[in-house]
Formats: sequence, C-alpha cells, structure tokens
Amino acid sequence: MCQDLHADQHSAGYNGSVQRASDPSQPFSWQVRVYYEDVDVGGVVYYANYLRYFERARSEWLRGLGVNQERLAAVEGIGFVVARAEIDFRIGARLDDLLTITVVPVEMKRAYFWLEQEARLADGRQCAAARIKAACVRHRDMRPQPIPDSLSARIAA
Amino acid sequence: MCQDLHADQHSAGYNGSVQRASDPSQPFSWQVRVYYEDVDVGGVVYYANYLRYFERARSEWLRGLGVNQERLAAVEGIGFVVARAEIDFRIGARLDDLLTITVVPVEMKRAYFWLEQEARLADGRQCAAARIKAACVRHRDMRPQPIPDSLSARIAA
Amino acid sequence: MCQDLHADQHSAGYNGSVQRASDPSQPFSWQVRVYYEDVDVGGVVYYANYLRYFERARSEWLRGLGVNQERLAAVEGIGFVVARAEIDFRIGARLDDLLTITVVPVEMKRAYFWLEQEARLADGRQCAAARIKAACVRHRDMRPQPIPDSLSARIAA
Amino acid sequence: MCQDLHADQHSAGYNGSVQRASDPSQPFSWQVRVYYEDVDVGGVVYYANYLRYFERARSEWLRGLGVNQERLAAVEGIGFVVARAEIDFRIGARLDDLLTITVVPVEMKRAYFWLEQEARLADGRQCAAARIKAACVRHRDMRPQPIPDSLSARIAA
Repeated sequence: MCQDLHADQHSAGYNGSVQRASDPSQPFSWQVRVYYEDVDVGGVVYYANYLRYFERARSEWLRGLGVNQERLAAVEGIGFVVARAEIDFRIGARLDDLLTITVVPVEMKRAYFWLEQEARLADGRQCAAARIKAACVRHRDMRPQPIPDSLSARIAA
Repeated sequence: MCQDLHADQHSAGYNGSVQRASDPSQPFSWQVRVYYEDVDVGGVVYYANYLRYFERARSEWLRGLGVNQERLAAVEGIGFVVARAEIDFRIGARLDDLLTITVVPVEMKRAYFWLEQEARLADGRQCAAARIKAACVRHRDMRPQPIPDSLSARIAA
Repeated sequence: MCQDLHADQHSAGYNGSVQRASDPSQPFSWQVRVYYEDVDVGGVVYYANYLRYFERARSEWLRGLGVNQERLAAVEGIGFVVARAEIDFRIGARLDDLLTITVVPVEMKRAYFWLEQEARLADGRQCAAARIKAACVRHRDMRPQPIPDSLSARIAA
Repeated sequence: MCQDLHADQHSAGYNGSVQRASDPSQPFSWQVRVYYEDVDVGGVVYYANYLRYFERARSEWLRGLGVNQERLAAVEGIGFVVARAEIDFRIGARLDDLLTITVVPVEMKRAYFWLEQEARLADGRQCAAARIKAACVRHRDMRPQPIPDSLSARIAA
C-alpha cells in the first residue's frame, strides 16, 4: 500500500544514463552535459553548480527507485533536504563535457542518510566528489522525521 | 486601510541606490555588482542573468513604493508575474562592474503594466535594455486579476 | 575543409530527444527535465530559466548539425551571442515535468539569424515561446561578423 | 610595489555592510537580500545558493582588503579557487530576508587558506555555516601556487 503510494510509473529513461538496474554491481549514474549557463569566466564549471548536478542525479536516482518526491510531499507531507555537504573540487569540467554523476548511499539512519557522489569526465578523471547528508523533514515546520520504512528499504537496497 | 496592508516599515536603504524619492525627476535605480557566479566563459555577464538583475531592481522598486510582495501574496492571494519580456543585449558587463539598473513604469492597464528597464555601466554605456510586461495574477490558479487601486496608484505615480 | 573544421564526431544521442534527422518534417526538439534548482517559490519554473532551457536546446541543435562551438571559437575566433530575446511566459512548468523544447531557424541574415523556440508540456500545452536573435561575433572584440557560408548552409537547411 | 599592484582605489561601500575597518574586533560582514531568483519551491533559499552568497561576501572582503582579483589574474596570472567546501544548512532564509554573511580567515598555508563563513538572519539565527578552502592557482594550468606574501599578509591581518 505504502509501496503504491511511492510508486512512479514514469519511465525514467529519457536520458541514456547507466542505471543500477542494468548492472547491480555498478552504482547508479546519470549523465549531465555542461552548457554555457554552467561555465564561469575561467572556462570551467562554476563550482557551486556541481551541487546542482549532484541533485539532478539524486532526483533521477530516486525516480529510478520509484520514489515520487511530489507525491511524497503532497500525500505524506515529508521530503528530503540537504543538511550538510562536503565537497572537493578537483578538475574543472569544460563546456560541452559530458559528465557522469554517481549516487551511492553509504549510511542509513532513522531520520537521515549519507550519500557519496562523484562527477567524472568521460576519461574517468574526477571533477568533484561529495558526501551529502540528506535529512527527512516534515514540510509543515521543517522538523526532522523518521524516514518511512518502505523508503528506507528502497534507498538502502 | 488597504494602504496599510501594503505598507512596509523596512528601511530599504541597505544598498546605496539612488531612489526616486531623492529626486522625483529621475527614474528609480538600483545598483548591482557583477560577481563570479554571474559571468560566463566569455568573461561577460551571462545574458539570462540580466533578467535576474532586472527583477532585483523591480523588487527594490516595489519595496521603495511600500509594496510588500509577501504580504500581498499572504493577505490578498495575488502577485505579479512576468508575462512577456523583450530584451536587447548590447555590451557585456564584466566581473566586478557595478551596474545601475533603472525601473520605469510606462503603461498601466487593468490587470498588467509595462515597465522599461536598463542596465548601464558606470560610464553610462548600456549593457541591456528591456520591456517587461508584469501581470497581476491570483496565486491559487494563476488567473489574471485586476491590480488593486491602491497598488496602481503607487506604481503609476 | 571548413566543413571538417566544424564537424563534430560526438554522437549527441545521450538524451532521447527527437531530432530532425529522424523526421525532417519535424523541427529539432530536445527534452529538458525540471529539477529543484529550476523551480521558484510559486512551484513553477523560475521564468528566467526558460532562457537556459532554450539555450540548451540550441546547443544540442548546433551539435546535431555538426557545429562544434568550442572549435569555432578556438579555430576561427568567432561565436554566436544572443542579441535580442522576445519571450512570452504562459503556463508554469512544475517540478519533474519533462519539457520538449523546439528550435526553428526562421530568418537568415549575413551576420545574424532569428530562431523561434517553444517549451511544451507532455500534453502539448505551451509554457513559453521565444523569438531569439543570434548574432555572429568575433570573440576578440565582440564585433559582428558574417556567418561563415558552411555554417549558414547548415543552419538554414 | 607588489602592494600597489593589488591596491584597488574603488570605494566598496555601495552596500551598507559592516566592515572590519569600522570595528576591528568584528569579522568582516556583508549583507545579501534574498530575491525571487534565490528561493525554491519550499519557500526558502535553494541551498546551493548559499555558496553564491558566501562567494559574494568573500569578493567584497577581498575588495575591502584592497585585493583586485581581475588585476591579480591579468598581471600575475594567479587567482583563488574553492578547493573544498563543508557546509551545514540549518534554517531556510525566506524571500526578502536580509542576510548577514561573515568572512573569517582561520588558517593560512603556503598555497591555500581556510575561511569560516556564516549566513545569519536579522534576529541572529544561523541559516548556514561553511568552512571553505581557498587555493591559490596559476590560471594557465590551474596548478597550485604559493600565495604572494603581500596577499598573505593582508588576508591574515
């Protein structure tokens, strides 16, 4: 029942990302193209934009797990927020680069979980790496909430 | 009464903008500094960001007129949206430039109004110029709404 | 020779966009997912972000035509800039919406061309429509330049 | 001589920030207004935007120290990049809030330094806090460079 609540019938594959489904030994990954809007005067991705790329990949990862964030907000009144981010910026990706962003949940707690994410160039070099703490909150007052069991199970899987 | 509703006791002058109050013959203006986040690989402000600068100036202009947009949304359930923008991009502003953004209402209609805005360098050269159509809408369903008289009077003044 | 200069061997199809190649009677289109970063407090795409979506589609359209903008800049010292944009904002796209962005060149001049672009929801409703004037400039001084013939031919095709 | 190279005659005070000059016992601070462009669907500042606010404050802090980043890039070919950021997101700032952003250098090394930054609401509550590692690099190849002595002295002062 709660499963149904979170289920999302959308097919996510409008973007040719390699998804864990196709190879469970691989982390979820999502490809992001670098556009003009992303690049700063140094010719490389403005560093704060990696947080956007990381979030796009997390959104697609959740979608791939069948978690519909809008329904979660509307029906259960909860959602995930980023409570802490630790990011290392290494090589600057350039205009037109196609980055591969990975999502790996590494630690589940009752009301939050930690993810590790990377952005890599096509040749495998790492542009940025992050540890992200995603906390479950009640939208009404933004107070911490336990992650529903059905969600925890999917995320940790 | 409705006046009170829109009145905002905040002193807006945290930024040294020249405001119409000080010289009624001059249009409202607001200064915006160009930061790293704003500049693209060509070393100039990413063109879409002028829409952000223009909106910051409109927000400050409304604040200067005593119009509190949050209260307007909360109490009357209405707000302004940009319905159309026509923008010419001329000279690219560069990192650290201090731009002067002007706001001039040019045509009042029942449910919308047109503004003209410019972004100029310190030496007076024009970076961008826009005509913006701001429409009053009901937030609930985003349907057009007449602009309240007390607001029209302030905007057109 | 100049053809080779602009040719781009990258396969663009990392995103399942419908491209003109597959049906020459259809305009080029590109799909863009709406993420958290894109949406404003009203729950809809922040209007200035449509300019970003439109540019992503133009970048992919050029890539699909075999035009490599980085090589163009590096080898010929020229590029395209947006000189004017006229945009109507209609229905606000929401979080998770998958927008289809079209690109239709409508008028070729010696040193610039006009495009028409739309952003549509899956059900066909139009969120935004724009007329964009893209001008060819010399990067060194940002002065207008004639569009190279090989480029004009591809764009107008 | 090198001092002169970095000196910036611009008066920074277009924004009513409290600067260390006026009270050396206080950290440098800079005020940032929250605009529509900054706020997400939850009605609070999109978390990645705190990185932008922090950078604006760092830019103004450097300007206040007489460090001209453009001149530094043009004349010495060096600049600062963010190599690592650790950020805690606490309370979400809302539309129209006026945030105070502080900048406190906490550790100087040969080729990088650490800063601590906070974003606080007018009532003193903390929205976000960060530790930022700023590294000096040679623009040509983005390799680490020793921070020039004249710069170190100012930053650490």
